[in-house]
Amino acid sequence: MSVPKIVVLGAGYGGLMTVKGLQKHLHYNEAEITLVNQNAYHYITTKLHEPAAGTSHHDHARLSIRSVINERKVNFIQDKVTAIKLDEKKVFLENNDPISYDYLVIGLGSSPETFGIKGLMENAFFIRNIDSVRMIREHMEYMFSRYQNEQKDELITIVVGGAGFTGIEYIGELVDRMPELCHEYDIPLEKVRIVNVEAAPTVLPGFDKELVEYAVKYLEGKGVEFITGTPIEECTTDGVVLKGGQEIKAATVVWTGGVRGNKLVEESGLETMRGRVKVDEYLRAPGHENVFVVGDSSLIFNDEGRPYPPTAQMATQQGQVLGKNLVALIRGGEMKPFKYMPKGTVASLGRKEAIGTVGDKKIFGGWAAFVKKMIDLRWLFLLGGVSLVLRKGKL
Amino acid sequence: MSVPKIVVLGAGYGGLMTVKGLQKHLHYNEAEITLVNQNAYHYITTKLHEPAAGTSHHDHARLSIRSVINERKVNFIQDKVTAIKLDEKKVFLENNDPISYDYLVIGLGSSPETFGIKGLMENAFFIRNIDSVRMIREHMEYMFSRYQNEQKDELITIVVGGAGFTGIEYIGELVDRMPELCHEYDIPLEKVRIVNVEAAPTVLPGFDKELVEYAVKYLEGKGVEFITGTPIEECTTDGVVLKGGQEIKAATVVWTGGVRGNKLVEESGLETMRGRVKVDEYLRAPGHENVFVVGDSSLIFNDEGRPYPPTAQMATQQGQVLGKNLVALIRGGEMKPFKYMPKGTVASLGRKEAIGTVGDKKIFGGWAAFVKKMIDLRWLFLLGGVSLVLRKGKL
Repeated sequence: MSVPKIVVLGAGYGGLMTVKGLQKHLHYNEAEITLVNQNAYHYITTKLHEPAAGTSHHDHARLSIRSVINERKVNFIQDKVTAIKLDEKKVFLENNDPISYDYLVIGLGSSPETFGIKGLMENAFFIRNIDSVRMIREHMEYMFSRYQNEQKDELITIVVGGAGFTGIEYIGELVDRMPELCHEYDIPLEKVRIVNVEAAPTVLPGFDKELVEYAVKYLEGKGVEFITGTPIEECTTDGVVLKGGQEIKAATVVWTGGVRGNKLVEESGLETMRGRVKVDEYLRAPGHENVFVVGDSSLIFNDEGRPYPPTAQMATQQGQVLGKNLVALIRGGEMKPFKYMPKGTVASLGRKEAIGTVGDKKIFGGWAAFVKKMIDLRWLFLLGGVSLVLRKGKL
Repeated sequence: MSVPKIVVLGAGYGGLMTVKGLQKHLHYNEAEITLVNQNAYHYITTKLHEPAAGTSHHDHARLSIRSVINERKVNFIQDKVTAIKLDEKKVFLENNDPISYDYLVIGLGSSPETFGIKGLMENAFFIRNIDSVRMIREHMEYMFSRYQNEQKDELITIVVGGAGFTGIEYIGELVDRMPELCHEYDIPLEKVRIVNVEAAPTVLPGFDKELVEYAVKYLEGKGVEFITGTPIEECTTDGVVLKGGQEIKAATVVWTGGVRGNKLVEESGLETMRGRVKVDEYLRAPGHENVFVVGDSSLIFNDEGRPYPPTAQMATQQGQVLGKNLVALIRGGEMKPFKYMPKGTVASLGRKEAIGTVGDKKIFGGWAAFVKKMIDLRWLFLLGGVSLVLRKGKL
């Protein structure tokens, strides 16, 4: 007897949550579940700004996939997806044989969106995954270590492109880290420059004005320079050139200005916008009853017809619903439509400060920072229960 | 009443030991003692290979000068010497007024000797001081952090030029560090290459053959590759080219092949060989009764007419004798001739291994490593007594 084959691509928030649902509800003999992921670990995207700045170790932002799945129910393949062939119902891998599916879940995440800015891909760094943030940290430290040898100010200048969520959270961590970093490399703290450049007229576009002002005031008080309403025109090996011609010499440029879907999804032939698939209410790709898309690979519009930004919160909720829907499908039941329920947003500004909204309440400062930590712990709880929270959680 | 002015340039082993002797034996009113050093700290050259590899923090290889001198007797100026004018009996500084002397002690150390190898100064790193070794560590870590992003083998290839004392000790530390480093950056240990290139026919030229074999066997067992009898012809941004044309691609090239005297000494008009002054038996520069040279700036020949290599041991002994001789000079007494008393040499091979000779005994392994540590502690004891040993010493 053959059972349906469910293949989940990507162990991000969406993919992993789907798998958690499947392994919880399905019996051993109801489906063959395969999870494919490039790394042996899941990384906690919402925490990547910390290891990128070096305020926490990258091991705090990842956890072993095998430790949160049930390997008696889920077949985990650590490999890189090279192609998705929808007509053959097959997924091609770098080091393993192609795998067939009856139901496919695509949760392959995103890649940086450079908006065609010249030199950005080649010369900037991206807060993207464990490898990339570890490299940012090491790059910055190497540049700082050169300062006493070469005495060039650009070595200790950091430009952050983009003042969205990731950009601001990363800057908050940088500000926290600087005293220690300067001590380590015998650099006077006041010599360091952290410059945030944003094309939109304000920092944290779309965020509540009062919260934005709080964040800007706090970070400016720590010496951060904000340049808003000014796009980066070019990123060079020496720094950035802004629209209007101003040049900022900086050895470290980190781009946080946006993401687009994984190009494998585009290449699969699915219809995409910036690499993301506009899914239906059951998270299906248009025209493909058996192909589901979650997380940054998916695109969902709100009631005003604007796309929701890709967030961990969105992906987690998608995975929770999709897991149950797949169980229903397999058992001949009814799927439930997905409806995003925004629970609020909190942006950290380093370890002890944050801003955000929970429900319709604005929160600031230490309390917001605490709420942020609770949100992080909740994800660990969803993945691995109390034991994972105790093992990996950190207040 | 004017007292003689003694100016000591450089707080290395030679300069600092001279000052220790002066402040111990002279009364407040017998001389005006000035010590000039670029940094606020003395660095322990014999330990620099550890922070260069990252096996210990650079703070373990430096100590505050003010903590080991008596500031009631010694005037410490933290500044960079820009020129020595012997005819004016003046020393020029970067940020302070020139200072006059009656007696001058030059202990300005060395700089790398590149033997004219093309590209070495521009592209290689040097185990030279705190700033340079901190940069080597950070550079190596940054290269390792790039590996998972770029998958290029040269990123995790380290070429060490020179198999003298410093080169071998540095390689010993690298070997110790690699497991932790590879774990940090998710790199399989066996992928890392450490290549030692030496122009002389053997590793550790001049060292006992049995000891050399022990060291080579130990390090080869840890995966180190030795290429002897082969000079480096060129160092590029990609690695090194050896005589004969072999190219080794390496992102990190560290040159330990030799040193020459500080160029300020040459520029002063003193007669030098490779920047070092051949001093007389009282450590005086030829033709200058009041100018003494110690440490790497000085050159002393053994009974067979060959120059002693510049070592901390030599500099320390010079400083000890010179301190007493200056006291004698000031009090109208007789100076004693300096005679180098080699007490043995121990080269560490990481934390738990070493080779060396003490008196006419050869020592190996753990015992030699212990002796090496005792030698390090002795320097701390000479500088600051038991309290400094307890504060900074580390077994």
